[in-house]
Amino acid sequence: DAPGQYVRVRCCRSFYPGERSARREVTDTDERAAARYGLREVATPALERTEMYVDKSGEAIVEELYAFEDNGGREVALTPELTPTVARMVVARGQELSKPIKWVSTRPFWRYEQVQQGRFREFYQTNIDVFGSAAPEADAEVLAVAADALTDLGLTADDFEFRVSHRDILGGLVRALAADPDVVDTPAAIRAVDKRAKVDEGEYLGLLSDAGLSRSTAREFDELIAGVETVDDLDAVAAAGGDDVADAVANLRNVLAAAADFGAGEYCTVSLTAARGLDYYTGVVFECFGSTGTVSRSVFGGGRYDDLIESFGGQPTPAVGVAPGHATLALLCQRAGVWPEEALSTDYYVLSVGDTRETAARIAQDLRAIDDEVVVETDVADRSFGAQLGYADSINAETVVLVGERDLANGEVTVKDMASGAETTAPVETFPPAVGRPTYDDFA
Amino acid sequence: DAPGQYVRVRCCRSFYPGERSARREVTDTDERAAARYGLREVATPALERTEMYVDKSGEAIVEELYAFEDNGGREVALTPELTPTVARMVVARGQELSKPIKWVSTRPFWRYEQVQQGRFREFYQTNIDVFGSAAPEADAEVLAVAADALTDLGLTADDFEFRVSHRDILGGLVRALAADPDVVDTPAAIRAVDKRAKVDEGEYLGLLSDAGLSRSTAREFDELIAGVETVDDLDAVAAAGGDDVADAVANLRNVLAAAADFGAGEYCTVSLTAARGLDYYTGVVFECFGSTGTVSRSVFGGGRYDDLIESFGGQPTPAVGVAPGHATLALLCQRAGVWPEEALSTDYYVLSVGDTRETAARIAQDLRAIDDEVVVETDVADRSFGAQLGYADSINAETVVLVGERDLANGEVTVKDMASGAETTAPVETFPPAVGRPTYDDFA
Repeated sequence: DAPGQYVRVRCCRSFYPGERSARREVTDTDERAAARYGLREVATPALERTEMYVDKSGEAIVEELYAFEDNGGREVALTPELTPTVARMVVARGQELSKPIKWVSTRPFWRYEQVQQGRFREFYQTNIDVFGSAAPEADAEVLAVAADALTDLGLTADDFEFRVSHRDILGGLVRALAADPDVVDTPAAIRAVDKRAKVDEGEYLGLLSDAGLSRSTAREFDELIAGVETVDDLDAVAAAGGDDVADAVANLRNVLAAAADFGAGEYCTVSLTAARGLDYYTGVVFECFGSTGTVSRSVFGGGRYDDLIESFGGQPTPAVGVAPGHATLALLCQRAGVWPEEALSTDYYVLSVGDTRETAARIAQDLRAIDDEVVVETDVADRSFGAQLGYADSINAETVVLVGERDLANGEVTVKDMASGAETTAPVETFPPAVGRPTYDDFA
Repeated sequence: DAPGQYVRVRCCRSFYPGERSARREVTDTDERAAARYGLREVATPALERTEMYVDKSGEAIVEELYAFEDNGGREVALTPELTPTVARMVVARGQELSKPIKWVSTRPFWRYEQVQQGRFREFYQTNIDVFGSAAPEADAEVLAVAADALTDLGLTADDFEFRVSHRDILGGLVRALAADPDVVDTPAAIRAVDKRAKVDEGEYLGLLSDAGLSRSTAREFDELIAGVETVDDLDAVAAAGGDDVADAVANLRNVLAAAADFGAGEYCTVSLTAARGLDYYTGVVFECFGSTGTVSRSVFGGGRYDDLIESFGGQPTPAVGVAPGHATLALLCQRAGVWPEEALSTDYYVLSVGDTRETAARIAQDLRAIDDEVVVETDVADRSFGAQLGYADSINAETVVLVGERDLANGEVTVKDMASGAETTAPVETFPPAVGRPTYDDFA
């Protein structure tokens, strides 16, 4: 933002109408996809007690909190993610809510982090969560909703893929391969896998040895997980681990089979090197990547977090969710050429010249009554014919209805098609006629 | 919120699906009303620099700010109102935006104030603003959009009224009546009028004398403004003031005439005792009250703020706006009996028993393809027939499609109407048939 006395806070973007209309269309598309599956919208607060994140979120998130003491002396923080909030809400009313609980919401979150491509300190996510089902169909439904949201935007299997992994396969393998399973720090090993694509090989292997694997075991582990490209490749992984790994492999296969039944099969690939960064994930996890490689980071991710509700003091409640972030989603859509047009659209501008306001206003009101989506503007600035026509053009008006004194004396209005410039007249008494949205063609 | 380890921050409410769906319907209705008039949606940040409010908002707002220093050492505040933000945005791109600029947005704001009926620390408003027109049609359009938003919700002229006033009438009268116009504090006198209904008569007259009126002049002033109940009564007011009052009376009349042309006439009354609390208002101001008196405070208000953009460093830009708050709006709707039903609605539950997931999933997908608004759930928790039927009931499913192994062997599914309990069968291969949204009646 250039001129003016006040500058915006660097974190925080303001979206003007054209850009906002494209973003709103994307949000509405996401929400409609979720609603079709019976995900129900919730609304959640911007502030939570800071201690919730200190206890439940990873250290990385706590460092990036916008936290402060409010006027009442409470330590509060702007919500950096939704999962702890919905976990709190499930616990608060867990007994009275019928299961599975299926929730969706779109809203901003805040993290004080480096501003970079596709990442802002204030960022919008659509959060989708299913609580109360451990069945593979719940994981599959979350994948199917995410796939529908993306394909409804115009994206195809050429544009994105879901890399599906399983934390219990990773953890079980680490413990099976380690010389001494008791000294292995499983969460640290999984965090190392999450960093695999972001750091060089030496640092990655170093992180695995910090987690308790010898250098050679770390290499063996990495070859095993990186070697899995298809479901069939999971046999070798199951054979290398114990019963826990075999169970996790079976669960991953069941989730992929259910996802195929639910219509999301073509978007899913197995990729054990996907791990997710947050500690509360359990079981199946997945990350969405742009297939062309032009969006280098994961577009968004999700997975199971079966232990979180219980850790909040609730009944044991399995859970699975996904949270598409809109900034990276926008990059994906823009690069695939399916980003909605960033332009205003207007169906009618009712142009009033001379002492014709009453009739022009009546016509504008009648046009607005045509349907729920019609957009009708009229003069609110007492401007000249030319200024009004220029304004009508600037808002991309499709049809201009000219209400002038001379036309009215003849019982007519002029209907102008703004694309061609063609004009014709129509009787004022019966305008607008009941023909849907009347245009120039209805009178020419 | 009762059980669980973490409590919500007192300011901040969480809305569960039934309540949220009602609130969402109200927001969507408001936004559609604004969109019909060509108001364009903008999106705005949650944080602004604190100094903007210290400089531009009243003292009352600054005391209630959620303000803190961010990790980068900047003094920032959670936005307590939208007007300074949109003023900043207009100034930043004032040259390139075609006028009038017509913006709308719905979002939360935050003020650390006493929690009371219809007032919360985190509260939602729909802000509607028109920049760049000093014409009475701009004021009238804002009134018309507000009226449409309320009548679209099902409210009528029996339920609400807009009390329309004019700050230049109030200020001009005060200066005309005062023994010494130079010692009158006009903004303080207007703030006193704003407090008129909230304090007792003695305190009110005291505030007027603090503003520079003698006790008897204060009474004379109050009798004059309180005596105005119709447009005709404005003659006496115009006669009691100077040219500035006469001009303001003419402007108020023009705004009311334009509002009548725009279809909002029946909702507007003249009430000079409406004044609005914020200092930046100029010209016409108005407040919406519930007509029955069951909502005692102003439901929302708005008005002109012609000087604010220039005070932000922009070109002189007249402006007028309104900001319905959703909490008081909800009270108004609830008391008028037009609050949307707080219940889930579901068109289909596809119940899968036995090894029928693939077919059930195919049917659910095909049902979801019927139209944009259809809601279809299916089993994601591997549950029994009875548990699924109970769940379908809990989400108010209208139709249950039973996909069982025996039916499938006969090439059929069972279609159950949940209201009556009636069941019939339909051929699975052609289900769902292309008849809009098929129900029991299509097969009975």
